[in-house]
Amino acid sequence: MIAVNYRVIYGDTDCGGVMYYGTYLRLFEIGRTEFLRAKGLSYREIEEKRGIILPVVEVWAKYRASAKYDDLLTIKTYLKEAKSYKITFFYEIYRSEELLAEGETSHVAISKEGKILRIPKDILDLLSL
Amino acid sequence: MIAVNYRVIYGDTDCGGVMYYGTYLRLFEIGRTEFLRAKGLSYREIEEKRGIILPVVEVWAKYRASAKYDDLLTIKTYLKEAKSYKITFFYEIYRSEELLAEGETSHVAISKEGKILRIPKDILDLLSL
Amino acid sequence: MIAVNYRVIYGDTDCGGVMYYGTYLRLFEIGRTEFLRAKGLSYREIEEKRGIILPVVEVWAKYRASAKYDDLLTIKTYLKEAKSYKITFFYEIYRSEELLAEGETSHVAISKEGKILRIPKDILDLLSL
Amino acid sequence: MIAVNYRVIYGDTDCGGVMYYGTYLRLFEIGRTEFLRAKGLSYREIEEKRGIILPVVEVWAKYRASAKYDDLLTIKTYLKEAKSYKITFFYEIYRSEELLAEGETSHVAISKEGKILRIPKDILDLLSL
Repeated sequence: MIAVNYRVIYGDTDCGGVMYYGTYLRLFEIGRTEFLRAKGLSYREIEEKRGIILPVVEVWAKYRASAKYDDLLTIKTYLKEAKSYKITFFYEIYRSEELLAEGETSHVAISKEGKILRIPKDILDLLSL
Repeated sequence: MIAVNYRVIYGDTDCGGVMYYGTYLRLFEIGRTEFLRAKGLSYREIEEKRGIILPVVEVWAKYRASAKYDDLLTIKTYLKEAKSYKITFFYEIYRSEELLAEGETSHVAISKEGKILRIPKDILDLLSL
Repeated sequence: MIAVNYRVIYGDTDCGGVMYYGTYLRLFEIGRTEFLRAKGLSYREIEEKRGIILPVVEVWAKYRASAKYDDLLTIKTYLKEAKSYKITFFYEIYRSEELLAEGETSHVAISKEGKILRIPKDILDLLSL
Repeated sequence: MIAVNYRVIYGDTDCGGVMYYGTYLRLFEIGRTEFLRAKGLSYREIEEKRGIILPVVEVWAKYRASAKYDDLLTIKTYLKEAKSYKITFFYEIYRSEELLAEGETSHVAISKEGKILRIPKDILDLLSL
């Protein structure tokens, strides 16, 4: 599990007074990017140097309590599954000890031309460390 | 089912060259707002006049193909379930005849003070028309 | 002048209860894209077929009154200047007869490799029609 | 001057391959919030405890070079002017030593009912430290 902090800005919230439900998907993105970086993998390098894109094919999120403006949140990212055809991350969004939301994203690997690829073994190995 | 069109702007896309995965949740919001309006319900009025908020408690989305800049999309919104404690909408995002994504949002009713409410029968009746 | 309507969604607003100040730049983008389309120019085609990008090099906006959730706004876009090295658009955001905001964006032309280009005369001619 | 770092995410970029021009206004917001915090002022507390809102009445930005996905940027925020009726911040966005963009926002003080207020002297004094 990799944890990163995130400070909620005005632009993340909506007129309901809380963080917009779509903003959580930005936080999930921050979480998985830093998860990869912590494992020695740069998503930018995977794309630029190896020509592999890992698009999201499925997402879900459950919202348990609201994040508010200026809250300091913690994004916890877990590897749920790393197979040759699919990677799944699991996320929890906390404010101190309170779980505000959780979710999952699943990713496949494609080439820049859109062809589905096997996820390289060295990436799967690093993710699972 | 209620259908509304949406034109993808630069601000909706990401450097992968396609619509950002979080942007779809904005489109789901547009879809359900116009679904309510077509049934004679204004979400703004439900909030302002009746003091009822219908926050999203759960969302999922499956991404089948990419939406691109300047695509003219169609957001189709369906009522999946309307019970006294939960409403669920189902969404499909099309470009012409091609299904790009689908998803669901579930909503409960709360007061402005955050107390869970039964969803009023007249709202459930109008939604189910 | 080209006018297009825009309905404010929850995702456009912030916890101050009004449209986020950054969202206006999305509306400016919608305005200039539809201005181009009304003149027979597709920005997507200018990029894809002619390899010309028209990035924003400068923007300003003045905020006079707040746009709120579910407001139906009108984006009015004007061509202020079309020279071979720079195009400037001017925007007004109205709610009915009330001017909420105004702004400007200036654009240069560059190739996909980032080289500054003269803006082609046929584009300048169409814009000025 | 107060400097804070910002990592560009996919959701900040657009299909032109660079950070969307509207995203810079989010970075300006991060900059001025952390400027206030560094001076011992919490914008959230100014709103909640004192009932003073500091809306943006004017913004401009100049874009000199593009920020790209995963770039680690530095947001530098300066107080340009602090008068009883208006505060102006100036911003610079850097990638290492390279200035990518600069901008300004001007703010007035209003009550929650929308009445224009004098900006309290203690806030002006702290800002100018």
